[in-house]
Amino acid sequence: MGVDLLSCWFSPYGMRVQVALAEKGVGYEFKEENLLAGKSPLLLQSNPVHKKIPILLHDGKPVCESLVILSYIEEAWPETAPMLPPAADPLARAHARFWADFVDKKIMDGSVNIWKSNGEAAAEAAKAFIESLKVLEGELGEKKYFGGKVFGLVDITLAPLMAWYYAYEKYGGFSMEAEVPKLMAWGKRCLEKESVAKSLPEPEKVYGFVGQVRKMFGLE
Amino acid sequence: MGVDLLSCWFSPYGMRVQVALAEKGVGYEFKEENLLAGKSPLLLQSNPVHKKIPILLHDGKPVCESLVILSYIEEAWPETAPMLPPAADPLARAHARFWADFVDKKIMDGSVNIWKSNGEAAAEAAKAFIESLKVLEGELGEKKYFGGKVFGLVDITLAPLMAWYYAYEKYGGFSMEAEVPKLMAWGKRCLEKESVAKSLPEPEKVYGFVGQVRKMFGLE
Repeated sequence: MGVDLLSCWFSPYGMRVQVALAEKGVGYEFKEENLLAGKSPLLLQSNPVHKKIPILLHDGKPVCESLVILSYIEEAWPETAPMLPPAADPLARAHARFWADFVDKKIMDGSVNIWKSNGEAAAEAAKAFIESLKVLEGELGEKKYFGGKVFGLVDITLAPLMAWYYAYEKYGGFSMEAEVPKLMAWGKRCLEKESVAKSLPEPEKVYGFVGQVRKMFGLE
Repeated sequence: MGVDLLSCWFSPYGMRVQVALAEKGVGYEFKEENLLAGKSPLLLQSNPVHKKIPILLHDGKPVCESLVILSYIEEAWPETAPMLPPAADPLARAHARFWADFVDKKIMDGSVNIWKSNGEAAAEAAKAFIESLKVLEGELGEKKYFGGKVFGLVDITLAPLMAWYYAYEKYGGFSMEAEVPKLMAWGKRCLEKESVAKSLPEPEKVYGFVGQVRKMFGLE
């Protein structure tokens, strides 16, 4: 039994879970889903509602949707490396959840069209993406992490950006370093953590993969 | 100081917060936002990121996004009427969070086009909406509430449907009673609770309001 993670190496949602498990020191088996070959019976049976990765299987019991999985990991292994401020500070916990939700709604949902479209649609997506990154940079301010001194929920939720940023830059025609230098410095600090470094693929590899997908979609 | 809720009487997101506060026995002042007259300075200052209601102000400190607000209410007033299963059961907590997220993504986001469009777009939205309701009905099964015997997070998240269902039926051209009878029976059970009954406006009033909005949008 133990812990299994059904995911794809390039999934930023899956990477969140990998970082969270690494932070908690929880060993797991990474089960790569080959979506091109069709979704596995285990995937379909474990997430019949959305039929999506990532799926965490804990002693065979599935938990789906990456932010729900992060909450689960926090509560199933509460002793080590808490992602959220202590229960005595519900306002600070709400603050972290608000920004994790912002990352989902504005960064993740908003970034797809940067590379999954061309021309004006791609340019608009890139513009909105940079605006949202600037909002995040404002929230980060001079802090080391979004969690302050602690690498927390928002950091874990956003860290997979550092696997994808190069693909966004190339297809969006912008430089993160020029647009959001403090956020890039934050990203580099995250990559200094072993939990992040070992969970994220190389940005060039993601870029290459995105190029293949674009060809499949007839975008280039 | 105390607790204030910035919302609009017709907002299903605001109703969730009202039901949760009523369940916890927390008194609050409902501050109606008149969005037609422009967003209030308090709204813009309290939620500069999304500029949306509902906003909970607890001793003047804002919490935004309805599911984040529900988590906050659960943690700020933990003693009374817990929305989530106990901390000792993280899997059951994840299960509830998964379904609350499903309601947001599939019911709330999916329902708007039933009344905010016409013709084929409206028919497609109604079809997808009914499919999602059937998934929820399957999850409900023979239970009294989504939380089992306990009126919990998923119930609170979905209960505002009972203020809107009549508008959905009229503009979507379907009958909830015919499509999802068990879910309607659940909705009626929810309305027997004072916390729900006093937080939801009459379905006919919402229907009338939706008609006005459609006229403003030139849809009829």
